[in-house]
Amino acid sequence: MSDFRSDGRAAIDWAADYLERVHQLPVLAQVAPGEIRGRLPARAPDDPEPFADVLRDLDEILLPGVTHWQHPRFFAYFATSASEPAILAELLAATLNSVAFLWRTAPAATELEGVVLDWIAELLDLPAGWHGHIEDTASTATLAACIAAREATGRDLILCSEQAHSAADKAARMLGMRLRKVPVDSEFRMRADALGDLSDAAVVIATVGTTAATAVDPVPAVADACEANGTWLHVDAAYAGAAMVCPEFRWAFEGVARADSLVINAHKWMLTPMDCSLLWTRRREDFRRAFSVVPEFLRTPDAEDALSLSEYGPALGRRFRALKLWAVLRCHGRTGLERHIRNGVELAAKFERWVSKADGWELCAPRRFSVVCFRRQGDDARNRELLDRVNTTGEMFISHAVLNRRYVLRLAIGQMNTSEDDVRRAWDVLVREAAQV
Amino acid sequence: MSDFRSDGRAAIDWAADYLERVHQLPVLAQVAPGEIRGRLPARAPDDPEPFADVLRDLDEILLPGVTHWQHPRFFAYFATSASEPAILAELLAATLNSVAFLWRTAPAATELEGVVLDWIAELLDLPAGWHGHIEDTASTATLAACIAAREATGRDLILCSEQAHSAADKAARMLGMRLRKVPVDSEFRMRADALGDLSDAAVVIATVGTTAATAVDPVPAVADACEANGTWLHVDAAYAGAAMVCPEFRWAFEGVARADSLVINAHKWMLTPMDCSLLWTRRREDFRRAFSVVPEFLRTPDAEDALSLSEYGPALGRRFRALKLWAVLRCHGRTGLERHIRNGVELAAKFERWVSKADGWELCAPRRFSVVCFRRQGDDARNRELLDRVNTTGEMFISHAVLNRRYVLRLAIGQMNTSEDDVRRAWDVLVREAAQV
Repeated sequence: MSDFRSDGRAAIDWAADYLERVHQLPVLAQVAPGEIRGRLPARAPDDPEPFADVLRDLDEILLPGVTHWQHPRFFAYFATSASEPAILAELLAATLNSVAFLWRTAPAATELEGVVLDWIAELLDLPAGWHGHIEDTASTATLAACIAAREATGRDLILCSEQAHSAADKAARMLGMRLRKVPVDSEFRMRADALGDLSDAAVVIATVGTTAATAVDPVPAVADACEANGTWLHVDAAYAGAAMVCPEFRWAFEGVARADSLVINAHKWMLTPMDCSLLWTRRREDFRRAFSVVPEFLRTPDAEDALSLSEYGPALGRRFRALKLWAVLRCHGRTGLERHIRNGVELAAKFERWVSKADGWELCAPRRFSVVCFRRQGDDARNRELLDRVNTTGEMFISHAVLNRRYVLRLAIGQMNTSEDDVRRAWDVLVREAAQV
Repeated sequence: MSDFRSDGRAAIDWAADYLERVHQLPVLAQVAPGEIRGRLPARAPDDPEPFADVLRDLDEILLPGVTHWQHPRFFAYFATSASEPAILAELLAATLNSVAFLWRTAPAATELEGVVLDWIAELLDLPAGWHGHIEDTASTATLAACIAAREATGRDLILCSEQAHSAADKAARMLGMRLRKVPVDSEFRMRADALGDLSDAAVVIATVGTTAATAVDPVPAVADACEANGTWLHVDAAYAGAAMVCPEFRWAFEGVARADSLVINAHKWMLTPMDCSLLWTRRREDFRRAFSVVPEFLRTPDAEDALSLSEYGPALGRRFRALKLWAVLRCHGRTGLERHIRNGVELAAKFERWVSKADGWELCAPRRFSVVCFRRQGDDARNRELLDRVNTTGEMFISHAVLNRRYVLRLAIGQMNTSEDDVRRAWDVLVREAAQV
């Protein structure tokens, strides 16, 4: 075990050094497709090699191929943070290697998962008594909600807005369900008046914080329509849900208490590394009916109140993801989460002001949270070229969207170490490179 | 960052201490449902707490609720091991927090995943050129295979044997596909002559190493039938596939080269912690057709050869699971994996001999790998009571199955630290407790 201790210290030092220096590395990996593969041997070694060699090759071979999600100038997609307590908790979870397919195979993992989901429900002001558990990603959570909705309603039609996440398209395709896209208004919110006939609809997916513009669908009106038609309401708040820890953002959750299911990704804006997608439902028994398959080998003498989380979602084996979430909640506390959210929103508001005041630039969507959609005036090609240029510098990484058929740039703040200097630098790089386009 | 270094050392010490003392702890958690939850506060703290408090509460509150999968006398289900290099690699993966939904968001994670799957394919003597990627669990891998098969064949019938894993039942239910169970022979292998008409079959799931008796379905005959009918062949070798690293077990993989898809869990018998399920296919384009949804925000200027693994499975976001598998292959090498497999099989063979020579005990299935199915002569109630008694001691943990309508006990070896003394002790406990029943 002495090797594990010394290797472990080396791994911790590697991690600490990495977190200290990540801001100096190019954000977007500066490699061509196939380059990393080409540097790796064609086959596994016959004989054991020391862990130190793994660390060395991580630095020398793999690191140039890493796009640094922990970089304070990672502004693409939805920026995320793996905070230190959660990183260490992943080490502990792997050490225990609990496999929580039955209560008895992992009582602590099973019960802690319920507890931390309850804790977060309270922090976000969700109704008491919802059943919460963890899935890997929002794609899986949305897939699970569609399965539960089909089971509960006996219908096979999914509705979502044109701005909903592609997880809806993918779920429909995987499940062989039909999908209808609902038009959006000028601020990219689902038009509840355009939902149409819901009498054969299994589920409407309403989004609080869409992927492109972080628009907030009118959940109360959608809930009205769902309730009138016996349609399941699933709310996708994968990104924006975390913001509800701050009372000033809870306007965006109006009506969410009426949802049948809700997904929020702790691995987006809640300081938790991939993967940790939180799924709540107020229709626990419908979920169980959809997913419970208890073959002989999984039958145990445990009482019915020994909840087995594998009966509530697609996977059987489940790792101890609750541990990292517990570490985050303990070590950051409610106030730490609030600070993280407010910091992101304030920085985005500053960036938004700089864009709004600059000649030749325009804002492309109302800013709701920590994402700014903007563009250089002119055609799409010019903005596409600008995006490539700024990302190629390695100084920052942003992504894009298409809104109103126009190519727009998108700056998303969510990395915990992002400072005003980082956002300022991103703006400087954009202005500098735009002059060259 | 000094906190992270000192907290990290404390976490490493906790992990090392745990691995050193886990053999002294009761294998099966000795708590009642709700007991762990009852010891935890009702709400998250407002203010940050030190990580040391998390470690303290892990010991004092959670540990009594942990069923110890790392215990050398964990013999239930399929015993597993999280080996040290893989534990540390999970720390590193969480530190990097790569999210591999597109090649450009994680080139190293994407390419390393392909490389290590190729490495393992070679170690297991699989055909060259198959496309391999990682899913969380075999349930998801089998679900994905059924989706790809439905897409490729336009059919909706799944077949598997009566002894196949419940993942098949669950996939059929989730996807709204039909399921037909094929009878088995006296050794619990699928009866290929009883497959029946496959003209409307999307997929046959053949199992190499069934959950109960580790039976090996006659893959060549099943492949014949599938090929004659344009039916997809999915092979579930979640447990036994790892054994193919040893040439003497490759008889069990006869015909697997003809499969359309194959799943093997690295987190079962390959020294890798949850979750790490390996899925290969020789029909890469069918997988891509089934799962590729590339909305505008995921379009990049990267070339077509910049493979994005999210186009080949259900999830969009994917964590850097390849890192732990790489660490396992580097630090154990081919010879280390072979030794681990052979050790498990040899210990199981010894246990089998003890049972076979003992009065009042019987073997209930041919032993193929590291699992022994056995029972005390007499009725099911007696065996059920015996199972409860031995597990309640905390000295060992075994599970059960039903074979030929009889309740049988099942001892599965797979934990890397299991010694002959551990297996001997398990047998002693069984004999001792059986005398009390």
